[in-house]
Amino acid sequence: MKPNFSLRLRVFNLNCCFDLALLQEVWSEQDFQYLRRKLSLTYPDAHYFRSGLIGSGLCVFSRHPIQEILQHVYTLNGYPYMVCHGDWFCGKAVGLLVLHLNGMVLNAYVTHLHAEYCRQKDIYLAHRVAQAWELAQFIHHTSKSADVVLLCGDLNMHPKDLGCCLLKEWTGLRDAYVETQDFKGSEAGCTMVPTNCYVSQQDLGPFPLGIRIDYVLYKAVSGCYIYCKTLKTTTGCDPNSSTPLSDHEALMATLYVKHSPPQEDPYPTQGAPESSALTSVLRDVWTELELGVKQAHWWAELAGYVTACGLFLLSLLCILALGEGAREVAILLWTPSVGLVLVAGTVYIFHMQEVKGLCRVQAELHHVLRRERETQDNGSEPHLAPLLAAGGGQS
Amino acid sequence: MKPNFSLRLRVFNLNCCFDLALLQEVWSEQDFQYLRRKLSLTYPDAHYFRSGLIGSGLCVFSRHPIQEILQHVYTLNGYPYMVCHGDWFCGKAVGLLVLHLNGMVLNAYVTHLHAEYCRQKDIYLAHRVAQAWELAQFIHHTSKSADVVLLCGDLNMHPKDLGCCLLKEWTGLRDAYVETQDFKGSEAGCTMVPTNCYVSQQDLGPFPLGIRIDYVLYKAVSGCYIYCKTLKTTTGCDPNSSTPLSDHEALMATLYVKHSPPQEDPYPTQGAPESSALTSVLRDVWTELELGVKQAHWWAELAGYVTACGLFLLSLLCILALGEGAREVAILLWTPSVGLVLVAGTVYIFHMQEVKGLCRVQAELHHVLRRERETQDNGSEPHLAPLLAAGGGQS
Repeated sequence: MKPNFSLRLRVFNLNCCFDLALLQEVWSEQDFQYLRRKLSLTYPDAHYFRSGLIGSGLCVFSRHPIQEILQHVYTLNGYPYMVCHGDWFCGKAVGLLVLHLNGMVLNAYVTHLHAEYCRQKDIYLAHRVAQAWELAQFIHHTSKSADVVLLCGDLNMHPKDLGCCLLKEWTGLRDAYVETQDFKGSEAGCTMVPTNCYVSQQDLGPFPLGIRIDYVLYKAVSGCYIYCKTLKTTTGCDPNSSTPLSDHEALMATLYVKHSPPQEDPYPTQGAPESSALTSVLRDVWTELELGVKQAHWWAELAGYVTACGLFLLSLLCILALGEGAREVAILLWTPSVGLVLVAGTVYIFHMQEVKGLCRVQAELHHVLRRERETQDNGSEPHLAPLLAAGGGQS
Repeated sequence: MKPNFSLRLRVFNLNCCFDLALLQEVWSEQDFQYLRRKLSLTYPDAHYFRSGLIGSGLCVFSRHPIQEILQHVYTLNGYPYMVCHGDWFCGKAVGLLVLHLNGMVLNAYVTHLHAEYCRQKDIYLAHRVAQAWELAQFIHHTSKSADVVLLCGDLNMHPKDLGCCLLKEWTGLRDAYVETQDFKGSEAGCTMVPTNCYVSQQDLGPFPLGIRIDYVLYKAVSGCYIYCKTLKTTTGCDPNSSTPLSDHEALMATLYVKHSPPQEDPYPTQGAPESSALTSVLRDVWTELELGVKQAHWWAELAGYVTACGLFLLSLLCILALGEGAREVAILLWTPSVGLVLVAGTVYIFHMQEVKGLCRVQAELHHVLRRERETQDNGSEPHLAPLLAAGGGQS
């Protein structure tokens, strides 16, 4: 018999007649204001998450009143001198919306992580993994009193990528594509597909059939059940026009939520994930970040040496300028040397901040692993187990 | 009769034999590691919050195991070119520690907001107010399942300053100095006092007797009661040496917490604060931020014009260099012009980010005020009242 669910939630996620439409890559606030006006009758509430220089690109349209709003800008988000990639200028972030629906508290998160420009030599891997940890921590700490947690977004990670595993293991969020019995759309749920005219074969790299990097993830806590009835994706083209809406396919999920005591769970999951699985992921993340720290240190040291050389050159030029022999050359070289010191100094500061940011995540992971080891040494229940049970067990 | 409290919590806050020692301005991680080793027997758990280039300066030592850690770095934190002030380089932040004590969940926050260098013409006021909002939002969203909330830190704000009112009104936190019946220490609870040898009369400005800018704030939620038994401050000198520990006085609080149903509250407060008081504070904050936005826009525009002029100059120099007449002058001016464009461009990017950051806070405030108005228009209970009741009413 079909359980009597008290809440049906339809979610539209794009990198539309749904309860929530969560968009990424709306770079212009003017575009958001235009959409807001056009959609105001169907979606009376909306919010644009401002950050960085350009903007996070994240926005949301809701049929239901948004009760509360919070946003967190990721500490690490690429490099300002990689102007052609541009992620740094957006200030990639995660946005939270709290909604009260049928007596339930829904925390809906929307995010967009750093892009992957070259999978073979991904210089942003440590940053994306650090972002996944910040995202997981943000969700974990802000959803403790929520009944339903929903995360939609362009994670720029394949389903088995380290950051994706970390996110799912730490928060207990479940992947709508994996969970649903009724999926319709592009093959293997891919959201970057070759049939989309904006996607080039180069974008797909070694995955010519497409990749799945956009997600609808969810969980229910504290005696609520959630169930993904259907999940759909677009398939590379907009039925009403010759060009698709985006280079990513849209995801449309219909979720059912029910208030119910835990023992009545009509869709039992496999129980809380193994604590050891999470421990293993955390260790792998720590190792990946260690490589990132080494790389950042290398760049900081190089920039430090160049700054020091520049300062030495400046002193030398001062001495030369005092003499008669090479005064003109000294004056000519003075400004480029000052420029060199300024640029190299800025790069040094940037990479030292990167080191601090990566070490901070490492310290947080280290704390989790140490607490786990101490609790196991004391012979009591592993510390991670209750976290996991609260996160994923009851959903 | 003295109530039978189930938890006594002694807190030491310095900008020590206590349950928690929360320090600010420990700039060197080596110093933290030294303290950690020295204190390891009394305080088996400790954490240093890494951020920025130098570090947030925040750290904590705990007698009890720290269960969870989170940190949030403030979006706005002064200007990198104000090198002599240095706040930008620290990456000012708020740190959260979750402790489980006698079956209660304690969320302890430690923070340090942007310094005030000139009260008469405070160019950092908008940033500090924005930080106070981010701090209040961080506490509000991460403490929803906590029994006891504790905030210690150097807020760099006087008790009646706008940011301080915002923080207390939005979170419902209560000021230990105002609440306690047993205060011992410097006059009026001041934490920057003229008897401290590191404090100059210039630091105190128009307050020659001292100022109170360090706080212990607390609240209890969900059927717990909290009571500040004693609050002490040091008084300008260390009893064991001729020099004090810091330029700020230390705060030492003894708090009692009790599990109890709300109707048995042995220390009733005056009830939930007025929704209109919060509305008024939010409006004042919005206006203050508007001034900040205008200022940031002005700087961004100036930097934008300078960048444009620099680019025009560069084009002119290119033309001159092609001719014969002023080739040498053109080559000589080429590098300073490139430098000008780079520096002005960086300043432009920085101030445009500042605009985005301030507008983001304004948008969040606007959302809160709009929700409040809508709820009042619908004739139902003001939206802010439940927030306030949950925050400060039951404590």
